[in-house]
Amino acid sequence: MPFVTNAVEIARREMAAINPPLADSFAKLILFLSDHPAAASALRGSNAPEVGSSEYLRRQAAGFSAARDPRSPQAPATVPDEMVSVILKEYFDIPEADLGRVKREHSLSMGAENLVGELLERYLASVLEPRGWIWCSGAMVKAADFVKPPLTAGAAWRLLQVKNRDNSENSSSSAIRTGTVIEKWHRTFSKRAGSNWAAFPDATLRAELSEEAFKAFVRNYLLALRNLRT
Amino acid sequence: MPFVTNAVEIARREMAAINPPLADSFAKLILFLSDHPAAASALRGSNAPEVGSSEYLRRQAAGFSAARDPRSPQAPATVPDEMVSVILKEYFDIPEADLGRVKREHSLSMGAENLVGELLERYLASVLEPRGWIWCSGAMVKAADFVKPPLTAGAAWRLLQVKNRDNSENSSSSAIRTGTVIEKWHRTFSKRAGSNWAAFPDATLRAELSEEAFKAFVRNYLLALRNLRT
Repeated sequence: MPFVTNAVEIARREMAAINPPLADSFAKLILFLSDHPAAASALRGSNAPEVGSSEYLRRQAAGFSAARDPRSPQAPATVPDEMVSVILKEYFDIPEADLGRVKREHSLSMGAENLVGELLERYLASVLEPRGWIWCSGAMVKAADFVKPPLTAGAAWRLLQVKNRDNSENSSSSAIRTGTVIEKWHRTFSKRAGSNWAAFPDATLRAELSEEAFKAFVRNYLLALRNLRT
Repeated sequence: MPFVTNAVEIARREMAAINPPLADSFAKLILFLSDHPAAASALRGSNAPEVGSSEYLRRQAAGFSAARDPRSPQAPATVPDEMVSVILKEYFDIPEADLGRVKREHSLSMGAENLVGELLERYLASVLEPRGWIWCSGAMVKAADFVKPPLTAGAAWRLLQVKNRDNSENSSSSAIRTGTVIEKWHRTFSKRAGSNWAAFPDATLRAELSEEAFKAFVRNYLLALRNLRT
């Protein structure tokens, strides 16, 4: 599915209309996708516009911007299974009187877990975007969370896929066949404590990135969310 | 992959050697699989014997029996992500002093959740097996957890797939192409309280099955495990 010939200009114009500071990044991202259309995620839904069309660009501009809006941790909306409390009481000796509290805190813990991967992307974006990388917010690029344009015309783009943990599911890496190498990195290990910042693929940024700095980012982010809430 | 011609006899003999009370059920299950080889799960591993071979029958007999051994709830072995505690403290106001306890109870809750589906199969087996169904322990049959032999020769087998919850992932239903209908049932709903026992597919067994009886089964099962432990 080819992109319309003036895709980059349309992209810049669409983004300028809704979120001007993102116009340049978004236009660059569309430049990458129009050169590597196999890497472009399709939109969902039965009436979704074709990849690369003007309407596709308009919808992706909205998604790229909206995915950067603040998002709060939230307990899952699903109803807990009562049998879990039975097991906690009968096998793990949680007192009856504590079961409600344990259920609530377990639910909050799941909500927190569900947000860590996104907080990680936001933290990385805060450091990487001022250094030339583009955060692919809104999952527009298959198998990449960040891309970096080449410094010289004709050179290769860098593609980076990040995961919070070594056993998180990969996004569909196999679906992208662009001849471009995808660099991969994960923050934590499922089988041991510690973090993996020392192995971050962009060596020039390693000194800027750390678990402590991520924690500080998360604290500030959540504090800002709380201030919005009150 | 066809089954060896005397598969049912080999199956009966292999099971008689390791767990005699299961010999008849296992032989019947192999009769079903030799008639519907597309429904037979492959064994894993690089040296796995071919589906339907004598060695396959020997290994499946061991698996069918071993999957019925008692299994305790266990917290996941993975290392918790410390950022979850940061979020609980900074956004959900869990006091610092409680974070260790919350982490431990969250881990036990996940261990309990991971066991509910298996407890459900064990409970169902306790009611269904005396009524002619066979529990496909050890995941030998693709997309079915229970099968029921026909009462008259040449009639169809019944296949039943059970899930703990309406949003649990399906096993690979699409992989089975035997012309046999797979009946499906789930115990709970992700979006509302209550249970689904009234919709259990075998109408003759509905009166025997209930959430209360399942709970009593779980309590007894866990009590027996605790007695083994001490």
